[in-house]
Amino acid sequence: MNTYRDIFKWGDKREATIDEGTLRVLQNAFGFTDENFQNKYLVGDQEIKLDNKCKLDQKIVDQFKEIVGEENCKTDDYSRASHSYGKFYADLVKLRKGLISTPPDLVIYPRNEEDIIQIIKICNTYKIAVTPFGGHSSVTRSVETPNGGLSLDLTKHLNKIIEVNEINSTVTVQSGMYGPAFEDYLNNYKDKYTCGHFPQSFEYSTVGGWVAAKGAGQASTGYGKIEQMVLSLKVVTPAGIIETKTYPASAQGWDLYPIFIGSEGTLGVITQVTMKIHKFRPAQTKYASFIFKNFDSAVAAMRTVMQSGIGVPHLFRISDPEETDIAFKTKDFEGTIANKFLNTLGYKSANRCLMFVSVDGDKAYTNQVISSIKNIVKKFDAFSLGASPTKKWLEQRYSSAYLRDPLMDLGIMTDTLETAVMWDNLIPLWNAVRTYLKSREKTVAMVHISHVYENGANLYFTYLSPMKKGDELTDYENFHKGLVDTIHTNKGSLSHHHGIGRSLAPWMQQELGKNTLDLMQAIKNQLDPNGIMNPGNTLGLKP
Amino acid sequence: MNTYRDIFKWGDKREATIDEGTLRVLQNAFGFTDENFQNKYLVGDQEIKLDNKCKLDQKIVDQFKEIVGEENCKTDDYSRASHSYGKFYADLVKLRKGLISTPPDLVIYPRNEEDIIQIIKICNTYKIAVTPFGGHSSVTRSVETPNGGLSLDLTKHLNKIIEVNEINSTVTVQSGMYGPAFEDYLNNYKDKYTCGHFPQSFEYSTVGGWVAAKGAGQASTGYGKIEQMVLSLKVVTPAGIIETKTYPASAQGWDLYPIFIGSEGTLGVITQVTMKIHKFRPAQTKYASFIFKNFDSAVAAMRTVMQSGIGVPHLFRISDPEETDIAFKTKDFEGTIANKFLNTLGYKSANRCLMFVSVDGDKAYTNQVISSIKNIVKKFDAFSLGASPTKKWLEQRYSSAYLRDPLMDLGIMTDTLETAVMWDNLIPLWNAVRTYLKSREKTVAMVHISHVYENGANLYFTYLSPMKKGDELTDYENFHKGLVDTIHTNKGSLSHHHGIGRSLAPWMQQELGKNTLDLMQAIKNQLDPNGIMNPGNTLGLKP
Repeated sequence: MNTYRDIFKWGDKREATIDEGTLRVLQNAFGFTDENFQNKYLVGDQEIKLDNKCKLDQKIVDQFKEIVGEENCKTDDYSRASHSYGKFYADLVKLRKGLISTPPDLVIYPRNEEDIIQIIKICNTYKIAVTPFGGHSSVTRSVETPNGGLSLDLTKHLNKIIEVNEINSTVTVQSGMYGPAFEDYLNNYKDKYTCGHFPQSFEYSTVGGWVAAKGAGQASTGYGKIEQMVLSLKVVTPAGIIETKTYPASAQGWDLYPIFIGSEGTLGVITQVTMKIHKFRPAQTKYASFIFKNFDSAVAAMRTVMQSGIGVPHLFRISDPEETDIAFKTKDFEGTIANKFLNTLGYKSANRCLMFVSVDGDKAYTNQVISSIKNIVKKFDAFSLGASPTKKWLEQRYSSAYLRDPLMDLGIMTDTLETAVMWDNLIPLWNAVRTYLKSREKTVAMVHISHVYENGANLYFTYLSPMKKGDELTDYENFHKGLVDTIHTNKGSLSHHHGIGRSLAPWMQQELGKNTLDLMQAIKNQLDPNGIMNPGNTLGLKP
Repeated sequence: MNTYRDIFKWGDKREATIDEGTLRVLQNAFGFTDENFQNKYLVGDQEIKLDNKCKLDQKIVDQFKEIVGEENCKTDDYSRASHSYGKFYADLVKLRKGLISTPPDLVIYPRNEEDIIQIIKICNTYKIAVTPFGGHSSVTRSVETPNGGLSLDLTKHLNKIIEVNEINSTVTVQSGMYGPAFEDYLNNYKDKYTCGHFPQSFEYSTVGGWVAAKGAGQASTGYGKIEQMVLSLKVVTPAGIIETKTYPASAQGWDLYPIFIGSEGTLGVITQVTMKIHKFRPAQTKYASFIFKNFDSAVAAMRTVMQSGIGVPHLFRISDPEETDIAFKTKDFEGTIANKFLNTLGYKSANRCLMFVSVDGDKAYTNQVISSIKNIVKKFDAFSLGASPTKKWLEQRYSSAYLRDPLMDLGIMTDTLETAVMWDNLIPLWNAVRTYLKSREKTVAMVHISHVYENGANLYFTYLSPMKKGDELTDYENFHKGLVDTIHTNKGSLSHHHGIGRSLAPWMQQELGKNTLDLMQAIKNQLDPNGIMNPGNTLGLKP
């Protein structure tokens, strides 16, 4: 029996469990008693049953089956239900409640690019919606199928490396390849390479998804966001194939490949990508961690590092006081002598902030950058905690996201939102968002900076608050709307690396302005004149 | 009396002179005698006279005058003639011959953005062509006015800094500001900054021109091309104003500001740009120069440096054997003991290659990068020549371009073309182009790499060859066509930083493919539905 829980759990069906330290934090924050921990809420263990069946004409379904083979064309309830949502908090609530109102009519696993070309041609002729589908880790409602149609799952077959070019330091890869397989391949290839892209969704996201959603990984401060990694790509659009050439740089009109980075499936199906790779030398990576007296000094230190011309760290991260506090509490640090010592030195709970750093590259470079950073942060009263906190954080890096399931079992609403902001607006924005989050009763609000630039940084917000039971969805949507409004009016971007999807689409016109959104729409109309690609207001586009 | 020579000479009307060393090289290469040096060819000292007068209706001209004032709206022959061409070799031949077939009808100097908005509105109504005009250093025929209309010269009034933001490390600047004024302002502003963009046209080019043509400066290996420097911009298009927001990064659909970088005036008038700036600390810059036994080892060393994770040099450059040879000959190095010594060590004339390096930034960084580079190049048999050759090269950096005038006075055809190529195609492309250039009798062909990436580099070709007197233009055009064909078929981009203009437009469809060019055209049509912006096949676009 397939249940809704089978869908919203992570790909390998693991059930994450909450450790003792975190449990204590939750008890403390929300006043939970044993009863809360015994009675799991909305666990989603009902059997999947879709009300609406595939609405496509059988003749058309047969055409698709002829192209990809019967085994790659699915109409069963589980396949369709599991391709209805990403991992947006509201998606998870809906799955727990068994609410799937617009599943795809068909789930198709194309075997190759030629299949995709034929499928898109048929869909364009009959105006059938097509939504490209990778690791379904979207947190912006970008893989839903409000108009039904096809969910085009690229992970089953389009998941191979096409070429590693060691002279050029590039890899060409099919878009449906998952992060771990991709990175493993590079790590073990001849002279050993890394792609340098490690989003929190790494284990359950694909190269094509990274590109389509314009993602960023934990080491983006050094390696760049995905848009700095891509050199060229190939896209099957309803108007034909767009394949850009691979150059290190060029000046032949404006670049066109960036249009597909962040396109979220609205323009076509990205089938392959050529990306930069770098030497993989983990033994030479240097780690450091520091504690600061407050958020202001941590931010100022971070900015100084980025503007000092000392080279760049790869991982560069600070947690705000509440996130730092919770990190310490969950690790049982509160009662220790070390904690007393830090407090005596002026690194006080509720004010202090953790910083994590790592630097990749040649030995001379990593040594120099780490030591330059140490010199800079000293001027901002940082206290060095050595390499180990950063290494420990890295170990649990991906799995912390999987806590969402047991937290929701406890009736906790938990979501993340992120933004990018110039340095001069960062502290005001952080304050405004914290004020907003704290306006809700019993809300834990953790903030970090995890992607840093010479000119600004991202802010990443994680909040936990008890669900309003019985009215979970409306309550969440209202709270989410206020949060996005707060970010928007305080000069943060709508997203730094999650993307827009359908959840942030309503803000696009006020964010971009009408002329700019019209330009996006004109590009959409040129490549997808019948509006079949991921329709339903994705990115604020029509249809 | 204004002559054609007044137009094609550089902006401050300087007359460059050829030094002794260079004269000897020319004598040697072309068999020139004293006679050649006495009888200057096509000097262009006739008085400017245009056959065709302003074709615009007087009522419309009066409307423009009302907007910008009589003094900012010019119809005289000198103003129109001096806005007819850039600095493309064929432009200079035409000017020397007094051939100006399609001057602009009017030259307008808008006083501010509001003027531009009004002018574009009128032009859009009456379908009058508009060509934005900066420092007229284009070498791709991108500022010509084949349909007449307006040349919109932004240098007279739109040449101011709007804001320097030290916290964000950004500058917002009007597009008509010239390079030297811009850089001087930043160098002297409070904590002292640099933009880091130093194209060879620096003295006679504007910020808007850099952006419109997608340029690169000598330090681009460290600071990036202009597309890596721009954070946001404002453009007045016939469809309205596009103003993008300034974020360090974002993921709200695909970025739209890159569409204007390389747009060459075809989409609208770029009025202001927000760019990154960096600390200006020339005292900390480190210099090095090396000589290699041959081009292969120099290229391999360069590639290794870029892929080693040691940080990046800012200036990074190698000259191929012929360019190196000429550099030495013009400096009278041939007969010296030092030269004998280098030859004895195996750095032989006709094979050896010069490398120039500089690194900007914090002291610890510049020391580490220079010493890492020294370690790497040693493995490729490089011999260190110390800091001074690089410093000397930098001193004459801009003025070397101004030799074009006295060379043309001698009847020498001299042009430059450039391309970008992935590492694995670089040597084959270099060979193919050299073979092509050398297929012409008496041709000096100098090549360098001056913009370097992890994944490839540019190749910059300079050639000198006697003009075919009486048939200079057709002869040049045929030779140029063969050269571009050679680059294109050997996997080089059509341009790395000069742009496309009208001179390379005929190759755009075969380079990009029809679907991609159609996408560019759709973007053009959205922003400029009446085709008034820099029309006449710029970038291969219609009209």
